[in-house]
Amino acid sequence: MSKSIFYHAGCPVCVSAEHDILELVGSENVEVVHLGEDTSRIPEAETTGVQSVPALVTPNGNALHINFGASMADLKA
Amino acid sequence: MSKSIFYHAGCPVCVSAEHDILELVGSENVEVVHLGEDTSRIPEAETTGVQSVPALVTPNGNALHINFGASMADLKA
Repeated sequence: MSKSIFYHAGCPVCVSAEHDILELVGSENVEVVHLGEDTSRIPEAETTGVQSVPALVTPNGNALHINFGASMADLKA
Repeated sequence: MSKSIFYHAGCPVCVSAEHDILELVGSENVEVVHLGEDTSRIPEAETTGVQSVPALVTPNGNALHINFGASMADLKA
């Protein structure tokens, strides 16, 4: 299977989603790209349909935008 | 690993996301729930933090809301 690409920007919500995605899909199957640090890859992300982060681009080219809602526990922390 | 639960409502966007998720995570690791047909499970979904579909609730209880943007190809079809 080709790799998926997980685009994020380093925010806590992104990191939490990243942890879940890597665990579910398998870290060996996902390339993680930090668009805040590696801005040269933003055009590539846009080309594949990424409109917001965190997002997962699947091997078949679909951009899944992942919106991990903040949990109540996070809000209380 | 415990199963993830994928909640959807049967729309084309949901089905497309479902296909991707099942392929990535492995269909044996995901329970698929059609909230449009099985409305009795809506309270359970709400309790786990699902606010929109499609959504994936991970084994550790995080609700990832998945927003699969329609592709240009879909719009042209």
